[in-house]
Amino acid sequence: MTTDRAASILARCDDLAAFTEEPGRITRPYGTASLLAARDAIAEWMRAAGMCTRIDAIGTLRGRYEGETANAPALLIGSHIDSVRDAGRYDGPLGVLLGIAAVERLAAAGRRLPFPVEIVAFPDEEGLRFQTTYLGSCALAGTFEPALLDYVDADGVTLREAIAACGGHLEALAAAALHPGEAFGYVEAHIEQGPHLEAVDLPVGVVTAISGQTRILASFTGEAGHAGTVAMHLRRDPMPAAAELILAAEALARETPGLLATAGKIEADPGASNVIPGRVDLALDVRHPEDPARQRVVAALEERAREIAARRSLDAHWRIMRDHSAVPCDATLADRLAEAVAATGTRLERLPSGAGHDAVVMATCLPIAMLFVRCAKGISHNPAEAVAAADVAVAVEVFDRLLDGLAADRA
Amino acid sequence: MTTDRAASILARCDDLAAFTEEPGRITRPYGTASLLAARDAIAEWMRAAGMCTRIDAIGTLRGRYEGETANAPALLIGSHIDSVRDAGRYDGPLGVLLGIAAVERLAAAGRRLPFPVEIVAFPDEEGLRFQTTYLGSCALAGTFEPALLDYVDADGVTLREAIAACGGHLEALAAAALHPGEAFGYVEAHIEQGPHLEAVDLPVGVVTAISGQTRILASFTGEAGHAGTVAMHLRRDPMPAAAELILAAEALARETPGLLATAGKIEADPGASNVIPGRVDLALDVRHPEDPARQRVVAALEERAREIAARRSLDAHWRIMRDHSAVPCDATLADRLAEAVAATGTRLERLPSGAGHDAVVMATCLPIAMLFVRCAKGISHNPAEAVAAADVAVAVEVFDRLLDGLAADRA
Repeated sequence: MTTDRAASILARCDDLAAFTEEPGRITRPYGTASLLAARDAIAEWMRAAGMCTRIDAIGTLRGRYEGETANAPALLIGSHIDSVRDAGRYDGPLGVLLGIAAVERLAAAGRRLPFPVEIVAFPDEEGLRFQTTYLGSCALAGTFEPALLDYVDADGVTLREAIAACGGHLEALAAAALHPGEAFGYVEAHIEQGPHLEAVDLPVGVVTAISGQTRILASFTGEAGHAGTVAMHLRRDPMPAAAELILAAEALARETPGLLATAGKIEADPGASNVIPGRVDLALDVRHPEDPARQRVVAALEERAREIAARRSLDAHWRIMRDHSAVPCDATLADRLAEAVAATGTRLERLPSGAGHDAVVMATCLPIAMLFVRCAKGISHNPAEAVAAADVAVAVEVFDRLLDGLAADRA
Repeated sequence: MTTDRAASILARCDDLAAFTEEPGRITRPYGTASLLAARDAIAEWMRAAGMCTRIDAIGTLRGRYEGETANAPALLIGSHIDSVRDAGRYDGPLGVLLGIAAVERLAAAGRRLPFPVEIVAFPDEEGLRFQTTYLGSCALAGTFEPALLDYVDADGVTLREAIAACGGHLEALAAAALHPGEAFGYVEAHIEQGPHLEAVDLPVGVVTAISGQTRILASFTGEAGHAGTVAMHLRRDPMPAAAELILAAEALARETPGLLATAGKIEADPGASNVIPGRVDLALDVRHPEDPARQRVVAALEERAREIAARRSLDAHWRIMRDHSAVPCDATLADRLAEAVAATGTRLERLPSGAGHDAVVMATCLPIAMLFVRCAKGISHNPAEAVAAADVAVAVEVFDRLLDGLAADRA
């Protein structure tokens, strides 16, 4: 039964993969014809499951399955349907389709819950077109920044024009925000985009928080020189300094549970094999589900960078490029989700989300919870993205149990 | 007296700086109008000092000051007169002009030595135009590779055409080589291009050897991943591996007297701040005046790279891009030069040359010796290149004492 429903969800992921701006690969940015076509297909599935559908001012698709009473706050279940360039087929759509599958079960049984269920398909989580993420969830949460309307895509089209071109209504943007009491929670299912669930051999996991992130540009400046003529003790070489900082970041991350530290980019100037560099720029990315832990490590790394620079007679420049606080999931709603996982007979695993999601924005106005579904090798943002039908079946059942549990609570 | 001669040498360096292909900066590649004009000016100075001048088949200027007897082997004193792009004014010309100044002293006194002195101005040590160095000294040493004639410059001109265009004679290339018994040694003075003499506060130093060099491309390959989703213990990150190797190279160099190890270039792929790299390429440059020491360190670093890769579940790729043996200076001729330094009252300092020089090629056919002249902050290949007049005066005197000493030897 859930096996058939999982197969249907995966088949729909395949169907949606055909909607793309680039033949041969999945590229479905905000406001494009392929995104609108994908949205139309999803709206059809929603209506077939007994939902009323509407498109809000910025292009978010909302399918509503009414509850027993007209005005009870709704449970929102959603994710996004846009994609990165050359994407996989599950990042985003899986969460929307799991929500629809949950409603289909209710509709098939002619059952109404004590609350409406709304399936939300956000049109811009990846930010591929305008380099700005969460357009849909910001509008729904009432945090949309009008300044974004002047953002321009690669072809010179403003977001303002893109909204109009895809049938959006600028004047109704403010009205797109949820009214007080309109909903009581937001639940998002998403592929993990990491290898943790695979490593612990579990189909799903409950997200504790979306990690905070600090992005740092650390620069060491010394003195460039000829690789063949400057004795080691006369050098002011920034390269070994950067190497020390890379290893310090790794060591600190390893000894701090839950902390991730990554040196993803490094550049030596002038960058010739026979020249001692004069400067090395190193990008560091530090994440943790709890802000104090992240802040402690960032401060320790800065101190370490300055100590390294002082010891090596270099200048250190420490620039915070981005600093996002962690977003914890709602304890109560996450516990309901955890109970639903346990009810399926699956061992409960809680894990943080290192990547951002629309849930981050929804947390500004609603209690949120997130369910992660195992993905093969943790690969995402890549055509090789894959999920197992058996894992999707577990996720389907988790949503059934979650709705049943919430229905019992709110009866 | 030597002060005036030093001032004259520096003034001539200034004069030569005006010969350039790029107004406002010194760029004087092989076979260009500016190089020929500089060569003409130098030939004039040679003739004024009583030398006969000739241009050989590839464009090397040779000025000969005859000795007491017609057929005695000559002492060659030389360096190069071409330049890198945006060069300083002393790298090359200083050695030629010091040689001319030594002959001027003999000519002014009407004195002949037991041997002829030939001042050699090589036309291509930097290799800026054809990316091949030592054209002139290779022709003189008889090691010129005819395959080089097909090398092409940025404008599509072959070396063959460039030689013809500047009055060279391809058919006479073989005849440009020194005959057996034509010379008994080659001495080259050059700015140090490093900070050692400045650090020990000495105007000149005697070169022990031109260091051997190994250039390595070390690559570590792991698995790219999302910086926010892959736990530290699940990563196969090549960046900390490269960092370990950088620090290992520095540590080995510091504990091995005379060894220089440089990581001048590093590249992470894909090289994004929020992506764990899948591969890191690191360029290593290892130099030492003695081959066994260099080879030991290169082998130790390779072993270290493989150990790091194994421990971190990475693949290591170790590629030798270049491997040049060290070229020792001739012990006897270098001792004569050292005695000349001591005779000026200067404390004797011996040091290796980390950079290559025409002397490397001349060592294939003659005993060689090199004198280094202190340069400000070790800066070279840069308009900021500077030497002190007082240091040049010491060098002038060293050459006087060297010629006097050799004359006494060979009387």
